[in-house]
Amino acid sequence: MLNATQNDLLTRTDAATPMGAMLRRFWLPVLLSRDLPGPDCPPTRVTVMGEKLVAFRDTSGRVGLVEPRCPHRGADLFWGRNEECGLRCSYHGLKFDVYGECLDVPTIAPDGNYEAIRARLRIKAYPARDHGDLIWAYLGPVDGMPALPAMEFATLPPTHRHVSKKRQESNWLQALEGLFDPAHVSFLHRAVTRSDEEMMKVMSKSNSAFPDRLRWLRDDPRPQFTFLPHEIGFVCGASRSADDDRKFWRISQFLMPNHGLGTSAFPGEPMDGQTVVPIDDHSCWVYTISWNPFRPFSHDEILRFDEGHGLHAHVDGAGMPLRNFSNDYLIDRKDQKERSYSGIVGISEQDSCVQESQGSIADRTTEHLLASDAGVMRLRRTLLDAVKGSQAGEVPAASTRPEAYFVRSGGALCPGSMPLQQVMKERFGDEFARIQAAGGPVPGEIKHRQDEQCIPSAN
Amino acid sequence: MLNATQNDLLTRTDAATPMGAMLRRFWLPVLLSRDLPGPDCPPTRVTVMGEKLVAFRDTSGRVGLVEPRCPHRGADLFWGRNEECGLRCSYHGLKFDVYGECLDVPTIAPDGNYEAIRARLRIKAYPARDHGDLIWAYLGPVDGMPALPAMEFATLPPTHRHVSKKRQESNWLQALEGLFDPAHVSFLHRAVTRSDEEMMKVMSKSNSAFPDRLRWLRDDPRPQFTFLPHEIGFVCGASRSADDDRKFWRISQFLMPNHGLGTSAFPGEPMDGQTVVPIDDHSCWVYTISWNPFRPFSHDEILRFDEGHGLHAHVDGAGMPLRNFSNDYLIDRKDQKERSYSGIVGISEQDSCVQESQGSIADRTTEHLLASDAGVMRLRRTLLDAVKGSQAGEVPAASTRPEAYFVRSGGALCPGSMPLQQVMKERFGDEFARIQAAGGPVPGEIKHRQDEQCIPSAN
Amino acid sequence: MLNATQNDLLTRTDAATPMGAMLRRFWLPVLLSRDLPGPDCPPTRVTVMGEKLVAFRDTSGRVGLVEPRCPHRGADLFWGRNEECGLRCSYHGLKFDVYGECLDVPTIAPDGNYEAIRARLRIKAYPARDHGDLIWAYLGPVDGMPALPAMEFATLPPTHRHVSKKRQESNWLQALEGLFDPAHVSFLHRAVTRSDEEMMKVMSKSNSAFPDRLRWLRDDPRPQFTFLPHEIGFVCGASRSADDDRKFWRISQFLMPNHGLGTSAFPGEPMDGQTVVPIDDHSCWVYTISWNPFRPFSHDEILRFDEGHGLHAHVDGAGMPLRNFSNDYLIDRKDQKERSYSGIVGISEQDSCVQESQGSIADRTTEHLLASDAGVMRLRRTLLDAVKGSQAGEVPAASTRPEAYFVRSGGALCPGSMPLQQVMKERFGDEFARIQAAGGPVPGEIKHRQDEQCIPSAN
Repeated sequence: MLNATQNDLLTRTDAATPMGAMLRRFWLPVLLSRDLPGPDCPPTRVTVMGEKLVAFRDTSGRVGLVEPRCPHRGADLFWGRNEECGLRCSYHGLKFDVYGECLDVPTIAPDGNYEAIRARLRIKAYPARDHGDLIWAYLGPVDGMPALPAMEFATLPPTHRHVSKKRQESNWLQALEGLFDPAHVSFLHRAVTRSDEEMMKVMSKSNSAFPDRLRWLRDDPRPQFTFLPHEIGFVCGASRSADDDRKFWRISQFLMPNHGLGTSAFPGEPMDGQTVVPIDDHSCWVYTISWNPFRPFSHDEILRFDEGHGLHAHVDGAGMPLRNFSNDYLIDRKDQKERSYSGIVGISEQDSCVQESQGSIADRTTEHLLASDAGVMRLRRTLLDAVKGSQAGEVPAASTRPEAYFVRSGGALCPGSMPLQQVMKERFGDEFARIQAAGGPVPGEIKHRQDEQCIPSAN
Repeated sequence: MLNATQNDLLTRTDAATPMGAMLRRFWLPVLLSRDLPGPDCPPTRVTVMGEKLVAFRDTSGRVGLVEPRCPHRGADLFWGRNEECGLRCSYHGLKFDVYGECLDVPTIAPDGNYEAIRARLRIKAYPARDHGDLIWAYLGPVDGMPALPAMEFATLPPTHRHVSKKRQESNWLQALEGLFDPAHVSFLHRAVTRSDEEMMKVMSKSNSAFPDRLRWLRDDPRPQFTFLPHEIGFVCGASRSADDDRKFWRISQFLMPNHGLGTSAFPGEPMDGQTVVPIDDHSCWVYTISWNPFRPFSHDEILRFDEGHGLHAHVDGAGMPLRNFSNDYLIDRKDQKERSYSGIVGISEQDSCVQESQGSIADRTTEHLLASDAGVMRLRRTLLDAVKGSQAGEVPAASTRPEAYFVRSGGALCPGSMPLQQVMKERFGDEFARIQAAGGPVPGEIKHRQDEQCIPSAN
Repeated sequence: MLNATQNDLLTRTDAATPMGAMLRRFWLPVLLSRDLPGPDCPPTRVTVMGEKLVAFRDTSGRVGLVEPRCPHRGADLFWGRNEECGLRCSYHGLKFDVYGECLDVPTIAPDGNYEAIRARLRIKAYPARDHGDLIWAYLGPVDGMPALPAMEFATLPPTHRHVSKKRQESNWLQALEGLFDPAHVSFLHRAVTRSDEEMMKVMSKSNSAFPDRLRWLRDDPRPQFTFLPHEIGFVCGASRSADDDRKFWRISQFLMPNHGLGTSAFPGEPMDGQTVVPIDDHSCWVYTISWNPFRPFSHDEILRFDEGHGLHAHVDGAGMPLRNFSNDYLIDRKDQKERSYSGIVGISEQDSCVQESQGSIADRTTEHLLASDAGVMRLRRTLLDAVKGSQAGEVPAASTRPEAYFVRSGGALCPGSMPLQQVMKERFGDEFARIQAAGGPVPGEIKHRQDEQCIPSAN
């Protein structure tokens, strides 16, 4: 339970708020790269933490993320022409590049005043980069801009990863909290069939169904928590009773300020993670990433992701889940009675349902947290500490350690008495699952086309 | 005409208002019984006087009406599982019974603290009962809870009654006022055909057409009023000139705080009544009940009710009229010119049209009441008196006399000089149309399954 | 750039505002005449400058424009019966004429009090007149009501004109400014094809394509401005380089307070103009009028207007453009890349797109006006002066000179050195293009059926 001030501190994200200032110290995903599919493609609207922006990809492939308002007469640049290294306002033809600089004012004479007028007509622009099939933007102070976080999925070949996004109609924190709440998996995402065979059939609709793990999740709804804090967040280990006195560990990582690495992967299996980015304080984008460092995804696997398998939601072209609040998530009450706990198809859709039902901004002053909410509590405390540091003028330490994001997470089955540190070493080769520390590769170099010059096509 | 304070007193109904407090002293319909069709059926959302609630019917058939917010993390219990004598939150499996008590907290260990935690996790619950195919709830102080009102329709076998509900997008009082405004029947609900034969055809679309009565209504638009106040409201007699120096009486009953018994029934004909319940101050449910103490309704009669005959509206499964504000009530302007006064099909839809058009909350400070509004004025005065008593700490007398609701109303044709008291005695056998006083049956005992214990099914 | 006070002065139009008071001194179009197609046709809703009204045409063809609220119990007269020289409330049959007088109170006895009651039940009514296939209303002080403006189109036979309206979701001023912004024509409304032949094909979708003029517009995006102020507004001449050292003049007229006469017509071609009327401060009606004093429009020309040719938009029966904000104006981004500057079909729809994108009320405190905005600046200054006069208690001079509206506008091709006064004389026969001054006809007499008495039909 939080007091009202704490709840506000955690949930309010516009530029004038402490959390807003803290989040702006980090690179944040703002689009899928495929939302801007090629040079000079149509611009698109983006809202991040309450700021309305327009994004475009210029002739040389660089991404612009600029304020949408033409400084001349206020027309929306979204309607503009994206051509020859800049976005032109469709009202009077003024043209702006990815840095927000005005390149052309065609309605006035190119006389002695021209240059001064042109220079004045600049618009706000934020640095934006493609990185791991996502477009990341940095909305913070220019002089403190860090490098992009070296998350494993972004360093792999595109064939080895899959990204998607879903829109959620709730404050961002509700979505993030769900990633550190292992107890709910024993309920919300469970089957309620009579037999284990039926359970497998029900679960395979929305997840890869591993009968033992599903059974362990169902039969022990009281996970035990261990946390390993580190420089950019913490490891959250949740253990359940498994067969033969062993423990089934589900291990996630919180990476500041808004990433959760998933818990499902056993060795060799694809990994996943989610990143939550506020649209405004009442809605957010949940980016879901699956990756497999060991092999490319098959065509079939990609198809299943697109249909809402695993943590991905089944969404339309704009990222809106097909099963959403406006259609009661297509809840099937008969299915809820006989087959699945929620009556709703899809892990991600089930999450959206309960998280959106917590309210536009959940009221955390009247909740009753239980021992099983230890992950949620740890997440809030970590964020509150960072926000308070930010209020005191500190740059969040994690934002200065982008290379530290090269870590993994996943599941493990270990002897019941083994402590989490040991589990981590056995499962990941390092207490914090650092890939390099475990003898893995160095993160690939992150190249930014952004820094090249744009040359209009000869065409 | 009221002043602004009076208008607020009559129209504002949330828990903190005088009218809200007064209404909460009475049992109020909140659903049709068939909205919760069987044990462990899907829960449903209910909003009453601004309070958002969720209703469910448990394994033994009892109705729960509880706050929708799980006290643990705030998820909406509407998405929950209704099973084995309680409603389970679909997020973490907490379970609540019809009394709001938490029966199970499955994510925490059943150790020494368990019981204290469980006991603390209770939610608000209101008593709710099936009664006459409606679900009634009592939202007032627990120690003053009266018995259910002994309305005749509720004491009859289900075969002898029909209930429906329509949603109206206006403050509740506008709907209630319409029931005591006999003058409008000569206009809004009238045909404008050239011949009486055509009139019969037009009117049969929405009402049982009795040519003489329709003619009297059309030809005398200036009803004369007589009121007979009684302990739970008043009798409102409106007389019009009929043939041969006789008077055509239409006699309604206002029963505190929100019931109007209808005026249409001649001896032997089915009776009807409406009960208005605020959803919030800008919308309400109008429950319509038809009953016939003398014989069951035929299949044909039921079909006609469902198609919007008489006071019933033609509604969809959620109670929204098919002809409503969003589609301009499907007004047919040619029909309005040539056949019906309103151009809208359905008595109830015609009422919704004009009442919704009075505004979300009608402004009664600028109206101009006429002598023909005597019924409306009497209704307001009766309610204002009760609200003022309530403000002074009095329990409304009517709420303590549930047995007094065993009364009737209807129409009569009498010699022109006969006073209303005499008309009542001739027509109903009693000055106030009390069924028992007229030698009728004693109201049937009202059995409450609610008081039985719930036993989970063996299944 | 304006300060916030000036922006408010220009954009706020309800009755309590200075601009609202100023606009109310003029007759303003509020409907197309065909929106009320005949005597006793269905009434229609009208909102003007924030005032919600209902309009009807009575038995003798006169237009009533009245407050929609029945003074009896507040029902909306929109649902009323339009019959026998008045609009009857459908709730209780009270009847009102075009002057707002109550003609009948059928629910009360015609005794000694009747007349006093009836006289008290009057509603607000504004004078309204058919004039040039538009319905004009006067919402100002009764004693200052001027004659209707003698605009040429309104004096011609109906066969020689075509009127339409479109709804725009922006403050009225944004729409009006567009009419005095000739520079944007070189961009927003332009083709971007490789060849001039293709250009002609693209442009013919939305305009009569005159290759030379299109080429001049495209090749000189920097029009030079000359203004000729006159008693009811100003002439705005914008010249561009044409072939052989000649200038291509596009000459518009601003006629107080909300009319813009168009720039397209060369001698003998149809003329056009637009009039902008606030619905409220966030939406407006744009009335578009095409007329040809020399010959009737052909069936084909009318068809093309209805399909959105020239300044007309392609609208549904209620005046909503088929291509509008809710469907992203059906922008075709491929078309925008290869064929048209905007990717949107229709001059009027292109205007709506950029003007609506300026915001509900454009923020003029942060814009950067350029030399090419001289027309916009002149318009604002003219309006600000009039509003300030109005604040000082002056009646706007233009409102007292309705006969001065008998003027024309259009395009011209002249030697490069010729000043605008001379261009006006050569093109229109008069410096201000006054039709009479140029030896043209006297404006036809404006007959008002409104002043005749209404006689109910014998029928």
